[in-house]
Amino acid sequence: MSGFEELTNRLVGFAAARQWERFHTPKNLAMALAGEAGELVTELQWLSDAEIRDELAAGPLRERLADEAADVLLYLLQLCHACGIDLETAANAKIDRNEHRFPPQQEDRS
Amino acid sequence: MSGFEELTNRLVGFAAARQWERFHTPKNLAMALAGEAGELVTELQWLSDAEIRDELAAGPLRERLADEAADVLLYLLQLCHACGIDLETAANAKIDRNEHRFPPQQEDRS
Amino acid sequence: MSGFEELTNRLVGFAAARQWERFHTPKNLAMALAGEAGELVTELQWLSDAEIRDELAAGPLRERLADEAADVLLYLLQLCHACGIDLETAANAKIDRNEHRFPPQQEDRS
Amino acid sequence: MSGFEELTNRLVGFAAARQWERFHTPKNLAMALAGEAGELVTELQWLSDAEIRDELAAGPLRERLADEAADVLLYLLQLCHACGIDLETAANAKIDRNEHRFPPQQEDRS
Repeated sequence: MSGFEELTNRLVGFAAARQWERFHTPKNLAMALAGEAGELVTELQWLSDAEIRDELAAGPLRERLADEAADVLLYLLQLCHACGIDLETAANAKIDRNEHRFPPQQEDRS
Repeated sequence: MSGFEELTNRLVGFAAARQWERFHTPKNLAMALAGEAGELVTELQWLSDAEIRDELAAGPLRERLADEAADVLLYLLQLCHACGIDLETAANAKIDRNEHRFPPQQEDRS
Repeated sequence: MSGFEELTNRLVGFAAARQWERFHTPKNLAMALAGEAGELVTELQWLSDAEIRDELAAGPLRERLADEAADVLLYLLQLCHACGIDLETAANAKIDRNEHRFPPQQEDRS
Repeated sequence: MSGFEELTNRLVGFAAARQWERFHTPKNLAMALAGEAGELVTELQWLSDAEIRDELAAGPLRERLADEAADVLLYLLQLCHACGIDLETAANAKIDRNEHRFPPQQEDRS
């Protein structure tokens, strides 16, 4: 079982044990995802690139970001589960398309 | 190699081949993530729960959502890479914490 | 002075008195706006339309939403100020364009 | 009539003439707002602060941002209308609270 499937199974079991499935409509999960993306952005909004680099090295910012990034992923996986989407397959397919759409730059051989 | 690592490696190679690493600061990637979360929400904003269910069964909506969900994941993985975060570990740790924080409901045995 | 100008003046004075202008770049303000939009969405994500109607009548939800809506507007005004945009003019121009783009439905006179 | 009321009246009339009121639930409008905030962020995500300043001076970026900022405001006003919130009053009340919460810095007189 892939890491994506394992996480999804944990989330499905978690919601079922709490009878939270009725809240997990695509609309509600998309809203929850947008909310968590907003929290992630909020962590970085007043910091310069140099401050972010320094605070990541110091530690606590990385832990807060890891926590918010996890929340984004957990709602994204639940949204994909509710919509019958295989996220890992969709992500690889998107990279395939982007590789066609944006060909790598030629090296300058002048 | 896990599916998360494989996707991250593809993304890192993709950015390097196009010399796009300089754009991929934590701030910029967090903004890109918020933008893609917004696109995902936009797909669902005017539809009722019943319409979403019907359109998911018909097909095209699922493909558009899969595409947007993939974009969210790809920026999330790149953000985690830029910040030294292991997303899969962070996600499992978050579910562990949630299992403590929200104990499953007791069955009513009255 | 219009209500938009008055609010903008208060915000400009507020930031100057605290020497916060250096944080108020367009990028940072756009991130803050996205964060506040996320908080607003979060207030509604698990509620049904009927629950929202009932909770709005009861009071506290309306106050929380008013607070989040205010935050969105305050960052939006500061972003417009930082970018030299007249928000009220832009909003009226957008409605003008939408009136052309989406002509009102004809009444059915069959 | 204030500029806020005038815009709200135009939006209410616009939706009524197209029979779009049924789409304008608080949830749907909050999603539309988050989507537009995402579009605004997207305009700035790959640009440095210096590039933003230069492109604002050149023109087209300002017009695109003005258009997105207008969309954010229009959905925000419609959300407030749907929820019985007076946005201008809420915004002034929020600045009042912030003035108490964050007292201006004392000048250093050492």
